[in-house]
Amino acid sequence: MIITKLLFLLFSFCFFATHILYLRFMNSFTSLSRQFEERFCVRHFPEEPGTLYDPAQYILGLGGKRVRPVCVLMGNELFGEIDPDAWQVATAIELFHNFTLVHDDIMDKAPLRRGMETVHHKYGESKALLAGDVMLVIAYDYLNRVKPAIAGRIIQVFNKSSREVCEGQQLDMDFESRDLVSMKDYLHMITLKTSVLLATSLKLGAILGGAGEGNQNHLYEFGKNLGIAFQIQDDYLDAFGDPDKFGKKTGGDILANKKTFLIIHALETATTSQHNELRELLNSNPFDKVEKVLKIYKDCKVDQWAKALKDKYLQTALQHLEDTAVLSLRKKPLMELAAYLISRES
Amino acid sequence: MIITKLLFLLFSFCFFATHILYLRFMNSFTSLSRQFEERFCVRHFPEEPGTLYDPAQYILGLGGKRVRPVCVLMGNELFGEIDPDAWQVATAIELFHNFTLVHDDIMDKAPLRRGMETVHHKYGESKALLAGDVMLVIAYDYLNRVKPAIAGRIIQVFNKSSREVCEGQQLDMDFESRDLVSMKDYLHMITLKTSVLLATSLKLGAILGGAGEGNQNHLYEFGKNLGIAFQIQDDYLDAFGDPDKFGKKTGGDILANKKTFLIIHALETATTSQHNELRELLNSNPFDKVEKVLKIYKDCKVDQWAKALKDKYLQTALQHLEDTAVLSLRKKPLMELAAYLISRES
Repeated sequence: MIITKLLFLLFSFCFFATHILYLRFMNSFTSLSRQFEERFCVRHFPEEPGTLYDPAQYILGLGGKRVRPVCVLMGNELFGEIDPDAWQVATAIELFHNFTLVHDDIMDKAPLRRGMETVHHKYGESKALLAGDVMLVIAYDYLNRVKPAIAGRIIQVFNKSSREVCEGQQLDMDFESRDLVSMKDYLHMITLKTSVLLATSLKLGAILGGAGEGNQNHLYEFGKNLGIAFQIQDDYLDAFGDPDKFGKKTGGDILANKKTFLIIHALETATTSQHNELRELLNSNPFDKVEKVLKIYKDCKVDQWAKALKDKYLQTALQHLEDTAVLSLRKKPLMELAAYLISRES
Repeated sequence: MIITKLLFLLFSFCFFATHILYLRFMNSFTSLSRQFEERFCVRHFPEEPGTLYDPAQYILGLGGKRVRPVCVLMGNELFGEIDPDAWQVATAIELFHNFTLVHDDIMDKAPLRRGMETVHHKYGESKALLAGDVMLVIAYDYLNRVKPAIAGRIIQVFNKSSREVCEGQQLDMDFESRDLVSMKDYLHMITLKTSVLLATSLKLGAILGGAGEGNQNHLYEFGKNLGIAFQIQDDYLDAFGDPDKFGKKTGGDILANKKTFLIIHALETATTSQHNELRELLNSNPFDKVEKVLKIYKDCKVDQWAKALKDKYLQTALQHLEDTAVLSLRKKPLMELAAYLISRES
């Protein structure tokens, strides 16, 4: 009896010691970001022809938070040691993300990206278009380096997300020319355009970490809901943020007549007179447009609604992380990620 | 002794009977084209959002000779029965080819494709750009259906070619703004832009058919050289073809100041006075421009040179087919392909 108890204690000790030792070596979000950046800041393309590959390399050099590739690594590390293939998948995800930025900037005719000239502005639209194309092809080169046993599954999940990102961008453009967009449709578009890639990055990491389907899906839902919460926060801050803390002037979305969670909710809940006033403001550009729209937002309590909605999505995200069947301690880097994304003044 | 001889005869009979039986069931180029078209003329995309997927389906509906996907099937059938995966790869190749057409047409600002409106002309540049993107992603969906044992190799070969096609398109655009392009550079560009995909289609078929590396490469070289011969013929016919047989007015390339095998060779071999006259003609648009350029071509014997060069590449192609280690009889469909591509009035 004593021997059984001793053996049980010894087994328990070994089990926890291994886990604690492992946890000591788990990477924080910041550490993984740094490690990824170090590996990623190389030339990913041949030297020649420079007219094709230099524009592609240019956008990668503009930096960015590298949140999505780090999600691949964190999704992997939640379930086990980082698989060398995870670096390939993370690179593919970052190349894909940058490919979408280059093409989206052409479609949006955007002059600036991360404070620098957009690719099409610097090199011309044709070069930007083709640079984007070749980045997508090279993303698949990285995916194709994954061990054959899981490469098919990885590409399948990656492809589903890639299609959805294209669908999201198209819906976004469709909505621009529409007066009325329902909250349901807008949420669907935002999910496809911005959340799906974050969710997919985490899921790909989970697959690389050997997670079961249940855990893969929980991680996907964590990323998806976190992405939506982030977007609501972004819309909120653009209207109500403290410019000193937010880093840019508020009201940009209002001046650009951009569809946001706020305007759609306001149009759906305003009184008839507020609705008419909003419509009139959308169709004109008075000097006090921002001020007037913000007043309607406040009157309709859009600010409180947005905060509550953001919290709802954040809580749903955290619940999915909670429901992921691994030791709570291992979830710390993903909690850090959530805090990092939803930490701005709100 | 007699028994040994009888056994040998029986063995030989069985061997040849199997092959002849197999050859009877081998498909001709026309039959494979028809079979591919039947399978391919379905909707390859989801219904929604139609704003994204309808433009993609539109270009596929414009037809085309489907030469590249049929090359996958023929490359496969040269070495064995058609593998079900070959249909997936053939579809991927045709989707990729159409993706390049959509994006090239945007870059070239082309209003027509196969006598119909180009995608960007019909739907707008943004929709065309995004439709092209999603076609490329869906091409990888088809590639990803190939059995895992060879999917990695298939994607690797496909990707190399895809990168090269992008390089070819970029070089083509670079050359447009250059006065002088050497024959070597032009040949390199044409190889990347038009021949590599034909060659790759055949090679992918060979891989699917279980061919060894030597045979894969022979088939690749067959396709590459055939593609170059086809391009030389195309340039030749645009200048010297019989409009009734060629199907369009000659001199189009001359009027568009397009770089062709003919103009590059003429500039490289003309006398100083012919060279100066050509340069002057390139920088102006007199009513008799075509006539005058053609006269210089004739004086420099560019027509004879082009015919000889086309024959040289065609012979190199056929030699590679000859060197492919399979029964000559099985090469018939590929001989048909060569005849089909290089059969126009020249």
